[in-house]
Amino acid sequence: MVNGDNKTSDRSNIAPVPTLRRLPRYLEYLKGLRVHGDAHVSCTQIAGALDLVPTQVRKDLACTGIVGKPKKGYPVFALMSSIENFLGWNDPRDAFLIGAGALGTAILGYESFRSNGLNIVAAFDTDTSKIGTKVRGVEVLALDKLEDLCRRMKILIGVLTMPAHYAQAVTDMLVRGGIKAIWNFTTARLVVPDEVVLENAQLASSFAVLSSKLRSTMHDPLEEESSEEVFVSN
Amino acid sequence: MVNGDNKTSDRSNIAPVPTLRRLPRYLEYLKGLRVHGDAHVSCTQIAGALDLVPTQVRKDLACTGIVGKPKKGYPVFALMSSIENFLGWNDPRDAFLIGAGALGTAILGYESFRSNGLNIVAAFDTDTSKIGTKVRGVEVLALDKLEDLCRRMKILIGVLTMPAHYAQAVTDMLVRGGIKAIWNFTTARLVVPDEVVLENAQLASSFAVLSSKLRSTMHDPLEEESSEEVFVSN
Repeated sequence: MVNGDNKTSDRSNIAPVPTLRRLPRYLEYLKGLRVHGDAHVSCTQIAGALDLVPTQVRKDLACTGIVGKPKKGYPVFALMSSIENFLGWNDPRDAFLIGAGALGTAILGYESFRSNGLNIVAAFDTDTSKIGTKVRGVEVLALDKLEDLCRRMKILIGVLTMPAHYAQAVTDMLVRGGIKAIWNFTTARLVVPDEVVLENAQLASSFAVLSSKLRSTMHDPLEEESSEEVFVSN
Repeated sequence: MVNGDNKTSDRSNIAPVPTLRRLPRYLEYLKGLRVHGDAHVSCTQIAGALDLVPTQVRKDLACTGIVGKPKKGYPVFALMSSIENFLGWNDPRDAFLIGAGALGTAILGYESFRSNGLNIVAAFDTDTSKIGTKVRGVEVLALDKLEDLCRRMKILIGVLTMPAHYAQAVTDMLVRGGIKAIWNFTTARLVVPDEVVLENAQLASSFAVLSSKLRSTMHDPLEEESSEEVFVSN
């Protein structure tokens, strides 16, 4: 339920999580091609540009339901539609953002979410100096209106950008308001009912990948010490 | 080179990327235990709390070099040190942040990075109204000082939070300044030399996971139509 990066799909129309994480990169690459008419693109071409292997690309794209033609590849526009359809990105979803601080402002300004069907219709905060103002064109409302508005406006997605220690309380409000999915940018580990989708943005995980790769590329004095110990102990 | 989520480790001290992404969650869970003395924790206990399978947890933790005791598990403090050591998080790394806008401000304020060894010593921007001010206690400097200061201060990590269309130009400056790792929060696909670590924060990937899971939990009219077509064609 939490994260699910270790889970395989439990529905035929859900791809493995690593595939889902790669699909936006394919889409971005295809958009960058700026082709016209019936231009085609091959797995080899995509794989080369994104530093992946062609068989992986073929498998990932097959999840979206598209079938390439031998020696020709995929029609670029049909492939883009196939990925967008699969992700549900051509179908705007109304969302509330909770926490109109720096992170919330950053998310509201992130162009690629806006163009990919995340339609943030209101932001919520407890800071009275922010309530009634607009952040990146989106009105900031009082937090105590959250649950009721969520229910009345049939909001699907809650984006959590408030301090971590409020995250569970806000999640509970959203769940009572009938939310379908929570996108958690805080470090809090949240508990949601089984029917609510939870995705953690996992900024700390990205930093873990960065720092461990960095550690391995550098001659870390710590590591040299420990490998020396091994020799000393012989 | 880019991302590498499809790559296996090429060095013995690098764990698979999915393992690296899970390690911060273990650490956060262990910190939350608030135990004293020689308390132990088992794989089953960790797995239960984080909705993973115990064998996966055991395998992940083994990557950090720690060995558990049968029926007892791991000493909590030793396990925390082992993970932190492995990630290089007990060893602060000096970093520059480029782009002191909303996203940059959010990253500067993200407590868990600060405590995990990301030591952002200066921020850079082209906006003259920001230069000379402090954001979350960190001074904002003019972008034209970036390359020289990077070299002189032997900065290891560059954190990119500026608009995507400047990202490659800034990356090139950092590379000339001798940077070792780039943490990219923009949507730009960057080219870096092989010896420079590149990690994309991939916020769009996280959103892809969220939206496709959401799509699959809802009765999407689009899907019903297409499954109907299958029957019609018989």
